[in-house]
Amino acid sequence: MEKMEKRSVEQYKVFDLNIKGSKAGNPFKEAKLEAVFSNGTERYRVKGFYKGDGNYGIRFMPGSVGEWKYEIFGMDVDDERIVCTEDDKIGEEKNDENGERRSGSFLCTPASEENHGRVLLAKNVYQKGEVNFYPTEDEYHFAYEDGTRYQPFGTTCYAWINQKEEIQEQTLETLKQTPFNKIRMCIFPKSYSYNTEDPEMYAFEGDAESGFDFERFNPKFFENLEKRVNQLDELGIQADIILLHPYDRWGFSKMTREQDIFYLTYVVRRLSHFKNVWWSLANEYDLMPQKPVENWETYAHVIMENDPYGHLRSIHNCIPFYDHSRPWVTHCSIQRIDVYKTAEMVTEWRKQYRKPVVIDECGYEGNIDFGWGNLTGEELTRRYWEGCVRGGYLSHGETYVDRGDQIWWSHGGTLTGDSVARIGFLKQILAETPVDAEPLELTPENHEENWDAPCMHLGDEFFLYYYGFSRPLYRNYTLPAGKKYKLELIDTWNMTIEELPEIYEGKIRIKMGARQYMAVRMKQVESENV
Amino acid sequence: MEKMEKRSVEQYKVFDLNIKGSKAGNPFKEAKLEAVFSNGTERYRVKGFYKGDGNYGIRFMPGSVGEWKYEIFGMDVDDERIVCTEDDKIGEEKNDENGERRSGSFLCTPASEENHGRVLLAKNVYQKGEVNFYPTEDEYHFAYEDGTRYQPFGTTCYAWINQKEEIQEQTLETLKQTPFNKIRMCIFPKSYSYNTEDPEMYAFEGDAESGFDFERFNPKFFENLEKRVNQLDELGIQADIILLHPYDRWGFSKMTREQDIFYLTYVVRRLSHFKNVWWSLANEYDLMPQKPVENWETYAHVIMENDPYGHLRSIHNCIPFYDHSRPWVTHCSIQRIDVYKTAEMVTEWRKQYRKPVVIDECGYEGNIDFGWGNLTGEELTRRYWEGCVRGGYLSHGETYVDRGDQIWWSHGGTLTGDSVARIGFLKQILAETPVDAEPLELTPENHEENWDAPCMHLGDEFFLYYYGFSRPLYRNYTLPAGKKYKLELIDTWNMTIEELPEIYEGKIRIKMGARQYMAVRMKQVESENV
Repeated sequence: MEKMEKRSVEQYKVFDLNIKGSKAGNPFKEAKLEAVFSNGTERYRVKGFYKGDGNYGIRFMPGSVGEWKYEIFGMDVDDERIVCTEDDKIGEEKNDENGERRSGSFLCTPASEENHGRVLLAKNVYQKGEVNFYPTEDEYHFAYEDGTRYQPFGTTCYAWINQKEEIQEQTLETLKQTPFNKIRMCIFPKSYSYNTEDPEMYAFEGDAESGFDFERFNPKFFENLEKRVNQLDELGIQADIILLHPYDRWGFSKMTREQDIFYLTYVVRRLSHFKNVWWSLANEYDLMPQKPVENWETYAHVIMENDPYGHLRSIHNCIPFYDHSRPWVTHCSIQRIDVYKTAEMVTEWRKQYRKPVVIDECGYEGNIDFGWGNLTGEELTRRYWEGCVRGGYLSHGETYVDRGDQIWWSHGGTLTGDSVARIGFLKQILAETPVDAEPLELTPENHEENWDAPCMHLGDEFFLYYYGFSRPLYRNYTLPAGKKYKLELIDTWNMTIEELPEIYEGKIRIKMGARQYMAVRMKQVESENV
Repeated sequence: MEKMEKRSVEQYKVFDLNIKGSKAGNPFKEAKLEAVFSNGTERYRVKGFYKGDGNYGIRFMPGSVGEWKYEIFGMDVDDERIVCTEDDKIGEEKNDENGERRSGSFLCTPASEENHGRVLLAKNVYQKGEVNFYPTEDEYHFAYEDGTRYQPFGTTCYAWINQKEEIQEQTLETLKQTPFNKIRMCIFPKSYSYNTEDPEMYAFEGDAESGFDFERFNPKFFENLEKRVNQLDELGIQADIILLHPYDRWGFSKMTREQDIFYLTYVVRRLSHFKNVWWSLANEYDLMPQKPVENWETYAHVIMENDPYGHLRSIHNCIPFYDHSRPWVTHCSIQRIDVYKTAEMVTEWRKQYRKPVVIDECGYEGNIDFGWGNLTGEELTRRYWEGCVRGGYLSHGETYVDRGDQIWWSHGGTLTGDSVARIGFLKQILAETPVDAEPLELTPENHEENWDAPCMHLGDEFFLYYYGFSRPLYRNYTLPAGKKYKLELIDTWNMTIEELPEIYEGKIRIKMGARQYMAVRMKQVESENV
């Protein structure tokens, strides 16, 4: 038997099979195609999908290095045999006696340095037994599946893939310059204030005038979507994909339950092999009263059945929260519930849900008429800090109405606001916190010194206080007894870190300069370093 | 019978009887003295008090013009007869056959223009049947007893009467220049951060070294207190007198229940004739766990029994509210319950308590270390506006630690902050609102335009929107159908009112200039004015 060189795929990247088949009938709806991938210990059942023009896809993201074998099972609409294309001939491959079964294998090579795989709940990374440094009981954080720390710093461009080609390219160019590592984006176009144009392509066949065929997808739309998700991945950006939303004049928000399930099944089969995909079932689910809770529950299970990789899942509110304690909800994806107080609620929400708290909309920097979209850069930055020091995560958005044709929050394009640089600065500060630092709990003992400012700490080793809109001339601290500290004064708005020259211990008073938006970082020093 | 010229007293001012008696024993504790004042329809039972050095006082504030007659009943500690002084000889006066009874009369003349009497709940002014313009069902506002509108704009100088004489004088000079018409002030001195000096006088006999006699008051202290309350009255400032508080190293906060009652009885008998007195049972009652709720309830009734004028009564929290629904609580006197959100809660608290909501501490402008005392002028002004447009009232405080020896919030002295002038501007705007304007209730119909900004309105005639930290480039309004309006753009920070030249109707878009702290005032215009 002749030994052929195996097809190889980098860990966490995509093994892509294109399979030729029939175009007859409606293959989107009627074709069945799946494959089983196994490396001997792990086994994945992967659903295929119709790509149009007689092409079917099976895509697999291997999470472990070494040899993977696969078998394909399938039948197209005419009950013709699936024919594997040239691509599949690489590797060990055979038809079974009935000609219905194709199999093969490929080699999964180790991930390159920048490739860390999926983002998962930190506790699940630990359970997988990979290298990682999260405490077992961690409930509030994320990690890449290789154990690398992942702290979401999101932004929002809801309808960027529904803009003109050049705007999409510009958006990617802009993103490249930002600190953002997650983006919230819709599949369907957006019909809303400042969003009045029809897109060039839709997910379904049809058009705005003559209507849409909710049983046939638009291959070109999905090719572009895949391309964009892949480009985001190359920028290290998680695509938090919003599957359904209410801002609609085309009928996509009012599909029937069956149509929703058909759509979700297809999208999830088509995109789940991207390691950077997150599923957001809806934006403002509560503005779609036509979809009862039992539908969302069903949809969540449709997603789980069709996503063999268990990507992160959430559902985003307008006013009332969805019940984030539902087992399928991996993390809270929260919108501001109050004009005045949202990021400050992270403390309570962590306790309530015992899951990572991501405030995906805490208001946007800009000057549009809506109260959620006319914050100053200072205020958005303050909310970001406030939420992060409390152990949560936030998303950015920008809504200037007088700075060009595009508004970032919806169209993408360019960013002009003041908060982006400060969010980048915060990202750096947060990356430097110990991985198991957690918000300081208020106790009767520490209440007097700590009631008015959030603090993140790791035991007595590390403290990060944040003072927000307060502007104390100085603050008093009672440092843990018998321990010595170096202190840094952080101006979160001017992005400066001033290391104070002394070594501190005991009761101290630190001059803060009566400035707003200050933080104080304290690191314990060993006696020998003093 | 010879007709003597009657002694006369201006309405709402004080008819003052000084009565000579024995100094023996402890007249503060043992003497009994009271008087009945009547004008034929109204009848008041007024308790007297010992002033020291054999002098006893009976003071009465007549609320109606015309002739008032009085009878004095009393016995001092030696069972000697009370002797009226020369003062009392004016008017019709006689001893009864036992020589124990003194009586007389005086003429109450109409109040001068600036004299409006007590501040009461607006609904009680209405019930009294005087001239007034408050709706019968008003639950949330105050009025002078002559029907004149009173909107509290408070400030805070807790221990000003316990500072040196010249500081007290300076405080009055400062107050004269401010918009404030209410001041929160303590009787007992304050022992707290930035408050470390002993006062020159105490309410009780004794001193810090050798201790205090909680059964004997210090006449000089009370003479000064009366003088200061009277001076405040001359400035049109309500004295919101804090009877008990926890910031104490002298023992005044730890008196027994009996001592508290003795003290409260004396203070109320001594001060209640001042028309500008309000009773605040405590500052931060919850920081005095030594005093159970049943004590506060008893103390409230001690006050009511000894105050024939029914002055306003409240009790101020640190963290948990006292039960403001108690019948004796005339209005909510609230301290910030949250670092981030207080003035914004007025809407909820009005609904909950159905009483006027006065946020007596929503944080102070300044730069001290405590989170309640280092707000910017912008933020304190924002809170003031936010609370007032929601139908509540607020108090100011200033806490700069680096602008001289005194800190206004506690010592008085001078004011240097930015918020005072803006509070004055707001006071002017608020005085121009229709007296029966109320906060706009959110409904499903108006939610979309109004969810993010409070608004005060009177039907379709008047609207006052406030946009706080938002900075919209413009706002859209749907004006009530068929009606025309003049609009003003109010910059609450720069204190400008820009009248827009047009007459508006229907759906309109108003340019706001992407500025923070803006308000929009709309007044309906009659067709003939257009």
